[in-house]
Amino acid sequence: MDHTLSAIKRIENRAKQIPGVISLAQGIPSLPSHHLIRNEVIDAMLNNKVDKYSPPAGLLEMRTFISQKLAEKNMEYSHEHEIIVTAGGIEALSATMLALLKHGDEVIILTPAYPNYERIILMAGGKPIMVPLSEKGGWILDLSLLKKRISRRTKAIILCSPNNPTGSVLSEKQLRTIGILAQRHKFLVICDDIYEHFYFGDNAPFNLCTQNQFKKQIIRIVSFSKDFSLSGWRIGFIHADNEHISKILSIHDNLINCAPVISQYAGLAALKNEKVILNEYMEIYRKRRKIMGDCLESLSEYVQFTWPNGAYYFFPKIIGATDVEGLCFDILEKAKVAVVPGDDFGAGGKGHIRLCFGKSEEEIIEGMKRLEQYFLYNKFTEV
Amino acid sequence: MDHTLSAIKRIENRAKQIPGVISLAQGIPSLPSHHLIRNEVIDAMLNNKVDKYSPPAGLLEMRTFISQKLAEKNMEYSHEHEIIVTAGGIEALSATMLALLKHGDEVIILTPAYPNYERIILMAGGKPIMVPLSEKGGWILDLSLLKKRISRRTKAIILCSPNNPTGSVLSEKQLRTIGILAQRHKFLVICDDIYEHFYFGDNAPFNLCTQNQFKKQIIRIVSFSKDFSLSGWRIGFIHADNEHISKILSIHDNLINCAPVISQYAGLAALKNEKVILNEYMEIYRKRRKIMGDCLESLSEYVQFTWPNGAYYFFPKIIGATDVEGLCFDILEKAKVAVVPGDDFGAGGKGHIRLCFGKSEEEIIEGMKRLEQYFLYNKFTEV
Repeated sequence: MDHTLSAIKRIENRAKQIPGVISLAQGIPSLPSHHLIRNEVIDAMLNNKVDKYSPPAGLLEMRTFISQKLAEKNMEYSHEHEIIVTAGGIEALSATMLALLKHGDEVIILTPAYPNYERIILMAGGKPIMVPLSEKGGWILDLSLLKKRISRRTKAIILCSPNNPTGSVLSEKQLRTIGILAQRHKFLVICDDIYEHFYFGDNAPFNLCTQNQFKKQIIRIVSFSKDFSLSGWRIGFIHADNEHISKILSIHDNLINCAPVISQYAGLAALKNEKVILNEYMEIYRKRRKIMGDCLESLSEYVQFTWPNGAYYFFPKIIGATDVEGLCFDILEKAKVAVVPGDDFGAGGKGHIRLCFGKSEEEIIEGMKRLEQYFLYNKFTEV
Repeated sequence: MDHTLSAIKRIENRAKQIPGVISLAQGIPSLPSHHLIRNEVIDAMLNNKVDKYSPPAGLLEMRTFISQKLAEKNMEYSHEHEIIVTAGGIEALSATMLALLKHGDEVIILTPAYPNYERIILMAGGKPIMVPLSEKGGWILDLSLLKKRISRRTKAIILCSPNNPTGSVLSEKQLRTIGILAQRHKFLVICDDIYEHFYFGDNAPFNLCTQNQFKKQIIRIVSFSKDFSLSGWRIGFIHADNEHISKILSIHDNLINCAPVISQYAGLAALKNEKVILNEYMEIYRKRRKIMGDCLESLSEYVQFTWPNGAYYFFPKIIGATDVEGLCFDILEKAKVAVVPGDDFGAGGKGHIRLCFGKSEEEIIEGMKRLEQYFLYNKFTEV
């Protein structure tokens, strides 16, 4: 496999060497962890609760609370056999792939997609099968194309809706069809719900995981990194049918023994104060989205884009650009703004750049001003 | 692979269902994390330093400090290219195996050994090759036996000295010979130095990793779990030649993105206050070792043992017992003491039980009293 870092990280590494860069590249929320979370963490630490390993599946208290919260969403999972607290979403996904893939098993990825999906599938000996979404009409899944890519070796499909990097959301109809195809062809639907709480319509998007008839097919991954601003804490969880969870637990035990216990208390506090924290934070992201989107609209001569329905990214197409990676490094050097080339998210992302509005208002305003200057006066000339 | 949990964890799981059990089974230190560590962690959190991802290799400040501390021990490793901060020793080992093993590569384990070694090698598609140590004379490595097990497919040997579960230490001569064999046959020496600071002679045991002529062969794993009582924090690090580290970093990035940042600050504080904390803690373990060893001597009719030179386990042989796993469950039910069957550590551990003196003095005294009562009045009868 390719041992180099993704373009996101290469851009970030270069950005760190240039003083005064504003990074709209890596998806790291600027907000600090909430004081309600910090208070509970300090309390747990001073009461000697965080120093020893928890059970591999996580603190009983946390799994019990997760199970209750899931039930409120019509997801019925036993805290004893169907939930594992993990060191973030990425560990959950790695443990899943290492536990369930046999050499040569195929995993379908809808692109553009988070680049680590491909890397993790390869690490686990699997074969990534790319199905590009159709940009026209807002990153729609062409079901006939998906069907063509399903084979006897198809073990799973990974869904991320709301999506990184496009900000798009799959429709209820599309998701149900995927569920039915998964049942028919006996493959798993791995739902990476990391952007679950980032949606900008009035109602939460349809979530296939709430449909119990698909339970045997579904593995759902939840992370606290983005919505609760806990990326550094490495905390999340995974839930699925007992048959899958028992295999994943064994690998999780090999990989990390248990999720960091202090972070488990952070995650528990996040869940307990979910409403308060998310109301506060999502209000902030709505504002940031508006600022960034308005700036992009004023650049309509240079970029084409749709407003994201979810997640916290814009994914504009750069009009006329073909070497977008070169463009991104040029923007970094000349305008001191870090953005990510769309190619990094698979063939479907060609010609695009990704901008994250996880950063503060001030940074977004300054970053977008610099981008505007770049496009107006210092347009990238391809070699 | 076998997806069940190890006997250690099965014993612990059963123990949790029985009220009043004293566990001398799992190797979890009873001591709380040190107040010097807690103070720095709270400080880092309140200064907003722990919420965002660190670079995949870990906080620059931590790697720089590790590099300096290693140099004091005659280990020269660049903080930029040769050190990764990991989510404990187990993540370091998993990342190493997943990064470096090709399907069918052989990894030599000296048994008795920590059971997860075998599980992790299998997870990574490798083949564990067991070389039993000779109990007579204190768990000595028979070099002619080791040489017989080296093949063209040998990719690595895992060493843990001081050893879990035997508490024994490999001699300088044996370690140097292993280093020379590794050079000659081009395999790696993976040194799991988790018990580095647990030694009960006057001087630290010889460490092969201090010998720079073996640097290209060596991958060294360090954990803060045992010596600094930070098992729940999941923090450690790995260092090796750049060629290996670059591959391991890519897998580490896939597995967890970065070690939990709050735990990185805990680890940094541990290193900064190493002398104060370890002097305090190791004094406590010396006392606990004496208490447990004295109790075992009074049971000489039932057990044979040598005093451990390092780590924090006794590994007595139960005279006349063949079904030691049955014995351990019987002890658990009747005497309410959890201990681990030696079989769990490979064939070399047959007939033994492992007792950890990580627990408090009071628990060790009470646990050993119960064991004595068990052996005197309620001797296990094999079926």
